[in-house]
Amino acid sequence: MSKDIGITVKKNDDFSEWYTQVVLKAGLVDYVSAKGFIVLRPYGYSIWESIKETADRRFKETGHQNAFLPVLIPESLLGKESEHFEGFKPEVFWVTHSGNDELSERLALRPTSETLAYDIFSRWVRSYRDLPLKLNFWNSALRAEIKATKPLIRTSEFLWQEGHTVHATGEEAEKEVMIILEIYRVIMENHLAIPVIVGKKSDKEKFVGAVYTTTLEALMVDGKALQMGTSHHLGQNFSKPFNIKFLGTDDKEHYAWQTSWGISWRLIGALIMVHGDDKGLVLPPKVAPIQIVIVPILYGDKEKAQILDKAKQIKDLLSEFRVHIDDRLEFTPGYKFNDWEMKGIPLRLEIGPKDLEKKSVMLVRRDTGSKTGIADSEVKDKVKVILQEIQDNLYKRAKEFLENNTDSTSDYDKFKQMVEKGGFIKASWCGNMECEVKIKEETGADIRVIPFNQDPVSQCIYCKKQGKHMVYFARGY
Amino acid sequence: MSKDIGITVKKNDDFSEWYTQVVLKAGLVDYVSAKGFIVLRPYGYSIWESIKETADRRFKETGHQNAFLPVLIPESLLGKESEHFEGFKPEVFWVTHSGNDELSERLALRPTSETLAYDIFSRWVRSYRDLPLKLNFWNSALRAEIKATKPLIRTSEFLWQEGHTVHATGEEAEKEVMIILEIYRVIMENHLAIPVIVGKKSDKEKFVGAVYTTTLEALMVDGKALQMGTSHHLGQNFSKPFNIKFLGTDDKEHYAWQTSWGISWRLIGALIMVHGDDKGLVLPPKVAPIQIVIVPILYGDKEKAQILDKAKQIKDLLSEFRVHIDDRLEFTPGYKFNDWEMKGIPLRLEIGPKDLEKKSVMLVRRDTGSKTGIADSEVKDKVKVILQEIQDNLYKRAKEFLENNTDSTSDYDKFKQMVEKGGFIKASWCGNMECEVKIKEETGADIRVIPFNQDPVSQCIYCKKQGKHMVYFARGY
Repeated sequence: MSKDIGITVKKNDDFSEWYTQVVLKAGLVDYVSAKGFIVLRPYGYSIWESIKETADRRFKETGHQNAFLPVLIPESLLGKESEHFEGFKPEVFWVTHSGNDELSERLALRPTSETLAYDIFSRWVRSYRDLPLKLNFWNSALRAEIKATKPLIRTSEFLWQEGHTVHATGEEAEKEVMIILEIYRVIMENHLAIPVIVGKKSDKEKFVGAVYTTTLEALMVDGKALQMGTSHHLGQNFSKPFNIKFLGTDDKEHYAWQTSWGISWRLIGALIMVHGDDKGLVLPPKVAPIQIVIVPILYGDKEKAQILDKAKQIKDLLSEFRVHIDDRLEFTPGYKFNDWEMKGIPLRLEIGPKDLEKKSVMLVRRDTGSKTGIADSEVKDKVKVILQEIQDNLYKRAKEFLENNTDSTSDYDKFKQMVEKGGFIKASWCGNMECEVKIKEETGADIRVIPFNQDPVSQCIYCKKQGKHMVYFARGY
Repeated sequence: MSKDIGITVKKNDDFSEWYTQVVLKAGLVDYVSAKGFIVLRPYGYSIWESIKETADRRFKETGHQNAFLPVLIPESLLGKESEHFEGFKPEVFWVTHSGNDELSERLALRPTSETLAYDIFSRWVRSYRDLPLKLNFWNSALRAEIKATKPLIRTSEFLWQEGHTVHATGEEAEKEVMIILEIYRVIMENHLAIPVIVGKKSDKEKFVGAVYTTTLEALMVDGKALQMGTSHHLGQNFSKPFNIKFLGTDDKEHYAWQTSWGISWRLIGALIMVHGDDKGLVLPPKVAPIQIVIVPILYGDKEKAQILDKAKQIKDLLSEFRVHIDDRLEFTPGYKFNDWEMKGIPLRLEIGPKDLEKKSVMLVRRDTGSKTGIADSEVKDKVKVILQEIQDNLYKRAKEFLENNTDSTSDYDKFKQMVEKGGFIKASWCGNMECEVKIKEETGADIRVIPFNQDPVSQCIYCKKQGKHMVYFARGY
């Protein structure tokens, strides 16, 4: 593979440049002429479809339904919950004209759909019989990114899902927040093989308008944290301004309780950053659009037909997996190996003239690079076992990285050095936003998450008063 | 069912009001505060998902891949193919600001993605090895509708898919146009049970920028035609301004050949108009999100448990179908019957105390209203047969309506009367746009389609010169 086709920097030498090269060269993403926007190419989109199918199935199993909302929101609706709107105001795209005519009211491109959805919900919800209302929307959100953009991590438009639910009681809404958080955790840890720290955001970092925000935080290889998904308890903060009321079983009117939650194509960005290596992408088998690529090693004309036949037989044998045969004639086997390695296919099967004789195939793992010859008769069973091993190994490696890069301290000087080094820092915090703001100003580190799994709490890392929570600090994306 | 819950007008008395009531009361659609926009509610969305899954599977089977494009298109790109842009200009929504800042270049909300996609394709296509490039996008399009809007038929934003392909030869592109047209025809006739007339659009009616447009036209019950989908041969009309060139096997550079094609949620509107009746929606089994609703008739407490048990057993028995048990306690069986009839569920199974004794269920068809008692042991086989009968019957009825409302004439006075009456009018046409424009001005009828199945051609219905084509005229949506 020529130098300009493969990845030309090492992950540990220039992480940012390495990331950009992987997303572009593996064919996940491309830029467009409008700044801050990207195209998701077919290979990237097929990874998104894989994540989407898993999430969609789990949402439906837990009683959620999909629906569609317009992308344009009248300005008057956006302003109904004032705190919420203020949070998004600087990044809203505004439609002012249609054709040559100026609109009587400006329309915002959806930065998120709370306001539009809740205006509608106020008409749909009348009685306890209409509850719970549990909707999900697969769409895109638009937030003008003026600062540094990064494909799949920070762009002016991104694919996501946003869930919006309405409940009769606060307890039920809080339960929903946790049901979704657990669905997200399973997708991230079991499918994407990315370990996450689960807990609440601080008030400073919560979703604007929420009572509280729960979050899943992962650690990237450059030591920065990434917010992987959030699930918000909205309480009655929106139902009051939007007038979402229902007649209860007690024959009285009550304001409803609400949640909202979302994950985005940022998860693909996380996949790249966590598992990728100097050769490119490394995909966990569960989300890989192609799990196994078969590369026939073609030489003589007579054997060519036999080798291709065998490739097809092996593919048929592996019908329970997602298998692709690369029978392109214009590329050498070496080129193909590099190409599929860059694309992160978990397993490669090579079939050459010798493998015909020996009734075997050569199996190459993407995660370790290890090669094993396997008898044809054992291919099916071995492949199944090895794909699971790859899935487990990727999670294990990422988990070890997370643990090796998470440390705790109660000394602020040491804390500052640790922030420079990168990784998660566990420290006690008094719960006061002033300390949080000072730490951010002085070190660049945020409180990423107040974990549900609390360690014993000592004095606040900043003000030295009695701590309230053990929290995870890090610089983040 | 109280009067304001059910449909209060007859389909034949006030078709337009009947349509609006069905889309709203069956829970398919709701309005939002922004004029011309609608929400697709969960029930409507599940019909869209059903259409989408069928189309998506066929697209993938024929070698197409999904991808994502931003919704915003810089003004400079839109203008690159001047004829194309002029066609959309009056209905484009313009983004002029982000936050408080005016943008340096206005951004258009995608009315369709040819221009944005082809700017990108010009970078992706280098050599014959990159061809064919066959992409599809499931997204929404935005076209400001100032005139009369109609939910699912004419709205300012609509869900659709747009396919865009690039080929090395014109023949290959033209073949692609026809492959897609046939996929569309099968979805419409075999799944939606809506017969269509397939052929080309006249130059006046073709897609702006296309060499020619192929179309599928259906007839609604009010005698108006509806364009159900289109597949365009773009020739090199876009590849030249957008500079999509490839190095051929002859080692020379060539401009590529292109197609684009789309179907939208308008198909749901067609379903309603073609099959619906005075009770509401009637869904063909193949696209119905729920094919069978089981309504337990609950009286005494003891039998209640037994009846619910039986309902569950019958549901398990019918696991190959999409079955829903309506076990809501707050509604009477009569209310439920009306509710599910309004929603168009093809088949209802009633289970009451007598059915327990007789080891049978009562089966009610939505399309004919006919009731049949069926022994439990025969339920599975009978249901399968009857669902197919409903599917076939809906198509047959629609086909008969189409045939009974299609007539031919060579007399222009008679033609004008026929336009007033509604339906398709087959007539000969000289191929001259002036005659077409005059006919439109004088009668309101367009040339809907120049069918591939041509009848013998006589003199032009308008100018009386020798005709070139037999065409279908009608007033349309």
